[in-house]
Amino acid sequence: MSHDALGDARPFIESRGFGGHVTPGQRPAILVVDLARGFTDTRFAIGANLDDVVAANVRLLAAARARDVPVFFFTAAYRPDFKDAGLVPQKQPGCKVLLIGSDAVEIDPRLAPRDNEPVIVKKAPSAFFGTNLDTMLRAAGVDTLIVTGVSTSACVRTTAVDGFSHGFPVLVPRECCGDRDPRAHDANLYDIQAKIGEVISLDEAVTYLRTLSGDNRDPAA
Amino acid sequence: MSHDALGDARPFIESRGFGGHVTPGQRPAILVVDLARGFTDTRFAIGANLDDVVAANVRLLAAARARDVPVFFFTAAYRPDFKDAGLVPQKQPGCKVLLIGSDAVEIDPRLAPRDNEPVIVKKAPSAFFGTNLDTMLRAAGVDTLIVTGVSTSACVRTTAVDGFSHGFPVLVPRECCGDRDPRAHDANLYDIQAKIGEVISLDEAVTYLRTLSGDNRDPAA
Amino acid sequence: MSHDALGDARPFIESRGFGGHVTPGQRPAILVVDLARGFTDTRFAIGANLDDVVAANVRLLAAARARDVPVFFFTAAYRPDFKDAGLVPQKQPGCKVLLIGSDAVEIDPRLAPRDNEPVIVKKAPSAFFGTNLDTMLRAAGVDTLIVTGVSTSACVRTTAVDGFSHGFPVLVPRECCGDRDPRAHDANLYDIQAKIGEVISLDEAVTYLRTLSGDNRDPAA
Amino acid sequence: MSHDALGDARPFIESRGFGGHVTPGQRPAILVVDLARGFTDTRFAIGANLDDVVAANVRLLAAARARDVPVFFFTAAYRPDFKDAGLVPQKQPGCKVLLIGSDAVEIDPRLAPRDNEPVIVKKAPSAFFGTNLDTMLRAAGVDTLIVTGVSTSACVRTTAVDGFSHGFPVLVPRECCGDRDPRAHDANLYDIQAKIGEVISLDEAVTYLRTLSGDNRDPAA
Repeated sequence: MSHDALGDARPFIESRGFGGHVTPGQRPAILVVDLARGFTDTRFAIGANLDDVVAANVRLLAAARARDVPVFFFTAAYRPDFKDAGLVPQKQPGCKVLLIGSDAVEIDPRLAPRDNEPVIVKKAPSAFFGTNLDTMLRAAGVDTLIVTGVSTSACVRTTAVDGFSHGFPVLVPRECCGDRDPRAHDANLYDIQAKIGEVISLDEAVTYLRTLSGDNRDPAA
Repeated sequence: MSHDALGDARPFIESRGFGGHVTPGQRPAILVVDLARGFTDTRFAIGANLDDVVAANVRLLAAARARDVPVFFFTAAYRPDFKDAGLVPQKQPGCKVLLIGSDAVEIDPRLAPRDNEPVIVKKAPSAFFGTNLDTMLRAAGVDTLIVTGVSTSACVRTTAVDGFSHGFPVLVPRECCGDRDPRAHDANLYDIQAKIGEVISLDEAVTYLRTLSGDNRDPAA
Repeated sequence: MSHDALGDARPFIESRGFGGHVTPGQRPAILVVDLARGFTDTRFAIGANLDDVVAANVRLLAAARARDVPVFFFTAAYRPDFKDAGLVPQKQPGCKVLLIGSDAVEIDPRLAPRDNEPVIVKKAPSAFFGTNLDTMLRAAGVDTLIVTGVSTSACVRTTAVDGFSHGFPVLVPRECCGDRDPRAHDANLYDIQAKIGEVISLDEAVTYLRTLSGDNRDPAA
Repeated sequence: MSHDALGDARPFIESRGFGGHVTPGQRPAILVVDLARGFTDTRFAIGANLDDVVAANVRLLAAARARDVPVFFFTAAYRPDFKDAGLVPQKQPGCKVLLIGSDAVEIDPRLAPRDNEPVIVKKAPSAFFGTNLDTMLRAAGVDTLIVTGVSTSACVRTTAVDGFSHGFPVLVPRECCGDRDPRAHDANLYDIQAKIGEVISLDEAVTYLRTLSGDNRDPAA
C-alpha cells in the first residue's frame, strides 16, 4: 500500500520507531462516520461541500456491498436539552443543530443505508464511545476496520485511534474522508499513518475489498 | 485564557460552529502522560530532548502540590511477549523498548512522583483506555483535567479527547506538552483548541491552580 | 438504613470482611431499568404482573421529581436483524420481542417519563454498557445512584455492580425492583447488600430524597 | 451439555423466554479470576478453604495448556491509600488486605502461572473493568470464554456477564468456581445458566478442550 501520508517525513518517523505497518485481515467492516446532512449540506454552519467525499464513499460502499462486507453508519444526535451531550454544546456550539429526529442527523441520502446496515447514534467523537460497536463487531466476526467520513481531524481520527486501541488493523482511504480545514485533514492523516493505521487510496481500498478470499457475510445476517 | 492555538484561523473556526470554550471547575487533577525515560532520554530511539517540557511540568507540579491537587502519572509498559500490547509492536515498533520493569518505563526522576501520586500503567494511547482512571477521578471528586506530557500528537491528544468525551473540561498547558515533530505538536494543539478543550499557557495554568477557592485534597487521602 | 437483605447471615458476612456500607451523597439520580411494557405486561412471555413494583416506582419518582432529582429510564431495544444484540437472541430468546419502535420497548405509561427525563436504549444487561450514561451522570453532577426496575437478577443487579465499579454509592429500594423468580430476587438483593451497595426500603428511599439539603436540579437543565 | 444449574426450574425459565444456549467456538481462552492467596488461604478473613476449586482449576489448566489455549489470570490489588479502589474499602473492608506486592494478591502457587500467561491486576469485580482484556482477547483471536475462580457470586459472575455483553459465549465449569457461601454459589450459577452462559461440569470442559479441532496457539506467541 502507498504511504505518502508521511511524505518526506517517513525516514525521520521510521528512524524514531514509528510508521510501522498493520496487516489487514479477511473480514473487514466499513465504519462511515458522521456523513449526515448536518455535515454534508452547506445549509448548516458545520456543513461543507463534501461532494467528492460522498462520491468516494459511494464507490467504496458499492465494492463493500458486492462482497457482503458489513457496513455501519454513525451519526451524532442529541436531545434538545443536551443532557446526553457532555460538553459538546460548550465546545462545539455549531453541533447543537444535531438534534435527534432532525434533518441534520440523517445520513446523506446519496449513501442510502440499506436495511441491513445499522445507523448508530453516537454522542462523542469516537464511534466506539457510548455505543456497543465493539460487541457488534465481535458478533459480525470483524477483524479489520475501514474508517471513512468526517471530520478527519475529529471523529474519523478518534474512531481510528479507538479501533487501534481495541486491537483492530485500521485502514483510512484518504479520498473517503474530509475536513473543512485542508491542513487539519493532512495533519491528521499524517498522525494516523505515523502511529495508528494505514492511510490508503480509494483505489487500494476497492482492490482490497475485491480480493477478499472468503465469504464475508455477517454470520448473523 | 489565551487562545492562540487557533491563531488567525479563529474567525473561520468560530464561523463554522467550533472553537467554543469550556469552563474549568474548582477540583482539577493533573494527568501527566508518558513522561517516562523512554520518551525523555535520547538513549532511546523514541526519546527526545524534552528538558523544557520536563521543566515546565516541574513548575506545574509544584503549583499543584502546593494546593493538594491530585496528580496521576501514566506510563505505557508491556510484557516481553506483547500479549497486552494490541498492535503497538506492529505500528510503533520503537515502543517495544517499553518493557514492564525496565528503565524505559520509569517516570522521569526530575518529576519525582510522590507516594500519594499514582503511577498508572496503560497499554494504549489514552490514559483512560484499559485503566480505571474514570473511577479514580470520581473517587477523588475531580471535575477538571489538566493534561500534560508526550506526545502531543498521540497520547496527550487522545487522553484530552477521552476526557472531553467523559464530560470533563480539559486544559492543556502548551509548554507542558511535547512532540518530536514540531508541526504535529502545533497541529494537535490546534485541533484540541478547535474542538476539545482549552490550550493555555503554563503561566495561566499556574495562576488557575493558585486561585482555586477551596480545599482540593483528595477526600480519600 | 435497614440491612435485612443479609438477614441472619450478616454476622457471617461481616466476619469475612464484607457487608460494609457506602454513604449516599447529596446529588442522587434515579436509574429506572427496563420497566418497559415487554416486562410489565403479561401479554409478553418475558412479562410479569409487576403492578406493585410499578406503584413503588411511581411513589419514588414523585419524591424524586419534587426535589428535581435527575431521572433516567432505560429500555432494551434491538434491530429486527439483531446485529446490535450480541448473544441475547441465543441466550434470552424471549427478548427477541424487544424490537426498536415496538410496544414492548415503550416505558410503562404509568411511569410517564417527562420530557426532561432521558429514555436511553441499551443493548446489554447493564445500563452503563454501550451507553454514555457515565458522561451523562458527570454532566448532571450526580454522586449517588438509586437503581430500580427489573429484573433484580439481571439488569438491576448488573447496573448496580457497574455503578459500584464506577465509584458510585448505589442504593436499591427493594420494593422498586422485581423478578419473575422470587428466589432470584432475594438472592440478588443479598449479593448486592453483601458486596455492592445498600438495599433499602422504599420508605427509606423517599425519606432520603426528602431530606436532600440542596438544589438538585440538573445544571444543564 | 448438562444444564442442571436450573434444575427443576428449567421448564419455568424456558416458558418465560430464557435459558437458551450459546455455542462455544474453536478458540477459547481461560479466565482465572481472583484465585490469589488472599482468597484461597484461610489466614485471611476473606479467604476460604478452596482446595477442591484449586484442584479443579489445576485439571482444567492442564487440559488447556495441552492444547495451547490462552490462559489469563486476574488478581485484585490496591494501593495502600486505596485511591485506585473506588468504594471497595467501604463496602468490602476485608479486601483491604489485597495490597499491591503483598502475599495476598499472589496467584495461588498450585496454579503456577506460566511465563506466557498474563497475570492482570484488576480493581473492580469484572475482569474487563479497567483492564484491556477485550483488546488482549482480540489480539489472541479468542471467540469463547471459560470463566473460573472466586467468588461465584461476585467476580466470577460479573466477569461472565461482561463477557456475554461483549458478545462472547461464556462457559462456567461449576467445580472450578467457589464461594464462601454455598447458597450464593448455587444462586449465581442459576442466574448464569438462565441468562448469561453455560454452566457445565469440569468433565465437560476438559472434553471440550480436548476436542478442539485446530491450532489454538496465540498468534502473537
